[in-house]
Amino acid sequence: MGKDIEVGTEYASKDYQDPPPAPLIDPEDQSSTDQWGGVGILGIAWAFGGMIFVLVYCAAGISGGHINPAVTFGLFLARKVSLVRAIMYIVAQCLGAICGCGLVKSFQKAYYVKYGGGANMLNDGYSNGTGLVAEIIGTFVLVYTVFAATDPKRNARDSHVPVLAPLPIGFAVFMVHLATIPVTGTGINPARSFGAAVIYGDHKARDDQWIFWVGPFIGAAIAAFYHQFILRAGAVKALGSFRSNA
Amino acid sequence: MGKDIEVGTEYASKDYQDPPPAPLIDPEDQSSTDQWGGVGILGIAWAFGGMIFVLVYCAAGISGGHINPAVTFGLFLARKVSLVRAIMYIVAQCLGAICGCGLVKSFQKAYYVKYGGGANMLNDGYSNGTGLVAEIIGTFVLVYTVFAATDPKRNARDSHVPVLAPLPIGFAVFMVHLATIPVTGTGINPARSFGAAVIYGDHKARDDQWIFWVGPFIGAAIAAFYHQFILRAGAVKALGSFRSNA
Amino acid sequence: MGKDIEVGTEYASKDYQDPPPAPLIDPEDQSSTDQWGGVGILGIAWAFGGMIFVLVYCAAGISGGHINPAVTFGLFLARKVSLVRAIMYIVAQCLGAICGCGLVKSFQKAYYVKYGGGANMLNDGYSNGTGLVAEIIGTFVLVYTVFAATDPKRNARDSHVPVLAPLPIGFAVFMVHLATIPVTGTGINPARSFGAAVIYGDHKARDDQWIFWVGPFIGAAIAAFYHQFILRAGAVKALGSFRSNA
Amino acid sequence: MGKDIEVGTEYASKDYQDPPPAPLIDPEDQSSTDQWGGVGILGIAWAFGGMIFVLVYCAAGISGGHINPAVTFGLFLARKVSLVRAIMYIVAQCLGAICGCGLVKSFQKAYYVKYGGGANMLNDGYSNGTGLVAEIIGTFVLVYTVFAATDPKRNARDSHVPVLAPLPIGFAVFMVHLATIPVTGTGINPARSFGAAVIYGDHKARDDQWIFWVGPFIGAAIAAFYHQFILRAGAVKALGSFRSNA
Repeated sequence: MGKDIEVGTEYASKDYQDPPPAPLIDPEDQSSTDQWGGVGILGIAWAFGGMIFVLVYCAAGISGGHINPAVTFGLFLARKVSLVRAIMYIVAQCLGAICGCGLVKSFQKAYYVKYGGGANMLNDGYSNGTGLVAEIIGTFVLVYTVFAATDPKRNARDSHVPVLAPLPIGFAVFMVHLATIPVTGTGINPARSFGAAVIYGDHKARDDQWIFWVGPFIGAAIAAFYHQFILRAGAVKALGSFRSNA
Repeated sequence: MGKDIEVGTEYASKDYQDPPPAPLIDPEDQSSTDQWGGVGILGIAWAFGGMIFVLVYCAAGISGGHINPAVTFGLFLARKVSLVRAIMYIVAQCLGAICGCGLVKSFQKAYYVKYGGGANMLNDGYSNGTGLVAEIIGTFVLVYTVFAATDPKRNARDSHVPVLAPLPIGFAVFMVHLATIPVTGTGINPARSFGAAVIYGDHKARDDQWIFWVGPFIGAAIAAFYHQFILRAGAVKALGSFRSNA
Repeated sequence: MGKDIEVGTEYASKDYQDPPPAPLIDPEDQSSTDQWGGVGILGIAWAFGGMIFVLVYCAAGISGGHINPAVTFGLFLARKVSLVRAIMYIVAQCLGAICGCGLVKSFQKAYYVKYGGGANMLNDGYSNGTGLVAEIIGTFVLVYTVFAATDPKRNARDSHVPVLAPLPIGFAVFMVHLATIPVTGTGINPARSFGAAVIYGDHKARDDQWIFWVGPFIGAAIAAFYHQFILRAGAVKALGSFRSNA
Repeated sequence: MGKDIEVGTEYASKDYQDPPPAPLIDPEDQSSTDQWGGVGILGIAWAFGGMIFVLVYCAAGISGGHINPAVTFGLFLARKVSLVRAIMYIVAQCLGAICGCGLVKSFQKAYYVKYGGGANMLNDGYSNGTGLVAEIIGTFVLVYTVFAATDPKRNARDSHVPVLAPLPIGFAVFMVHLATIPVTGTGINPARSFGAAVIYGDHKARDDQWIFWVGPFIGAAIAAFYHQFILRAGAVKALGSFRSNA
């Protein structure tokens, strides 16, 4: 990853005194954030985390709460959803994201324009590799949490996971946003990045789009592999000892 | 909705450089927000979401937690509450809101005046249609969450929903406030809008009042229709497969 | 309450233009709040609400989680704790608050002095009556939530309330702080107000001390009366219909 | 502790007018916090508390959720984990922290440098003793919460603690960060302090390192002693009375 850290290298050589170029959501309009009464990075992170909590809670009983192509891909790799169903879910997720972005653009255009259509793209000062790693790590955290929360072995011990699972999943989304909003605006959901790019129609958002598909799919694949092949044996043992204790 | 997006169009033609007129709670007093130690949009959203969580938690065991005419209307459409009971609940909700606003006005008048009596009204730069759509979508999210959280089919799987239901409902209210405070101050509860308008007695708050009844009732009706006629069949099937697995 | 609203009256006569005197925690040092990296009213409210959640969660299994004389008084009125035990709890609560404030004073004196020893007192521009009403309402909300969360009738329906009860109680404390920090710094716990006043030793904190005992005890008494004599009949009925359905 | 409170003494003698030297995360860069869109102390506290919630939730079913040497040490003292396993866990925790800090340094170096590598050290104006006490108290709160949340006696009453336990533990971490970020940046997890110091390689971070091992281990030992020898008898009695009631 040596090529990806020019930003850091540059500042390290400046003897720790010079702040890097502000990699914020709307760099030109930084000073007006407070005037606008914006909610800041913390508020944006809450908005994503809280909404995922509510949506997963509501949809869990109907479709299993699939609202993210990367999560669906991870669950497909772990053979928890069939290929046909996974593809149909991903198409539906992308169509839903396009509709949602179109709705925001049509009825609240001032904010839509101000915040760059909510499109994910690399902020200034970050290389492709850095953005990709941020998306991989962020999606790994999310999909790992999804596996932990929906593990049937946890169900065996503890029958009411279906209701509680949305809470750690929502919190995982919240954490990842706190960490990666300054880098990429936080994708970790290719449908959300895709819908925003389609409706916003920005050159850079479309050029960077591959990051928000490749990164999350790699992160989800690592999480699926880690859960299925590394944790599984241990979990089986733990369940065994649990059952012999109970 | 073409007529409703003048704000957006205006700014789009200005080549993305010009921020729209600040649609905040108290536009004339913007700069003093920090001096006042205000809690900002994030704090206001937490105040509404957290309080709805507490109130629904406390009242759920007594009346079912009806504190919002739009929710009551949605549950009436789904035949979960009778017409007479729904009307009585709505009257009680409006009387309670009037009493609450009167109490705030009488014992904390400085803040009451500063924050415009907490009255809901369209902020500058938003048309009636935009405000109406914001209220419809916001109330749809809330009532959809209420249906999901109180679905007896979920109960069948999972006996402790009555305690957990208030949490996603409170979070849904939190999310909607984050999204629509800048547009209308967030109604989604006609009783809250009605009580504030009655006690504050402002011309504009009364003129805009219809938005905060028509919007939430439309949103609640869509959520009730969606839950009863679209999700129901799927949920019945899901329950069937759940029971055959269990 | 006509005598208690001079603040409001004064500003109402100024035609809604003039903000009231800033009733914040440390009025002389307002502008340095951000420089200090303070957490603001929202952060203070989270600190109190979150800590009450943790403390009630931890202590619930040992003593029932009595950490507030007003709550203990309300539970005593409802005959859920004996007089002797209530008095011993209240003495222990006050001693604990004194020790806690002394610890803060001795090891973090700079902050201790800056934030006025955490002492509760009426902020400028608020009369005794307004502060008393704020404490009564705030403590009512808290004790009403405690009664709702620990109601044995809820237990009958739902066996795992003891674990979940701390969450709505913590949120109730969070909400009340958001509402009343600007008025009194939020007491609603006489032990917390007492310990801070004893260790800080400020004239005004001691003069205002009665508000933080009389207000919370009145609020707790109203909540106990409301729960025992008004809600009880309804709850018994609701439980009856619940059991006949089950 | 008389020697440890020079800061306080200094300001007390200045008649309460002079704020202490700002003990913030990045004192030289204070004014740019907002420009950077930083999340502030409240956001940092949420990031730590939320992440601990997610990690404990995910890892609880596999290893018991050991991610903190102080917690592991406390559980070892209470004989809930063997010596060999405790040492292996602590080594793994330190290696994980080194890897995590290395990852951040390599892919997000600008922020890494700006925020001092996330290294824990005493802020200006605080003595060794004050920092040590802050770490002892903070770790006591955390480990006390861990003992309360995983108490098998609580399990006996209430079978679903394993899922809920991560929530109060995460909140405890959140509270402690709100309290002690200005003093030491909040350690309470020696592995996190160790990894940051190793990778950041700062002189002061290494000199202060002992505080972040001695403090947390003392705090954990006090919590273990308090839980095992003081609360235990009471808890046994409480369980007895619970069983006789049930």
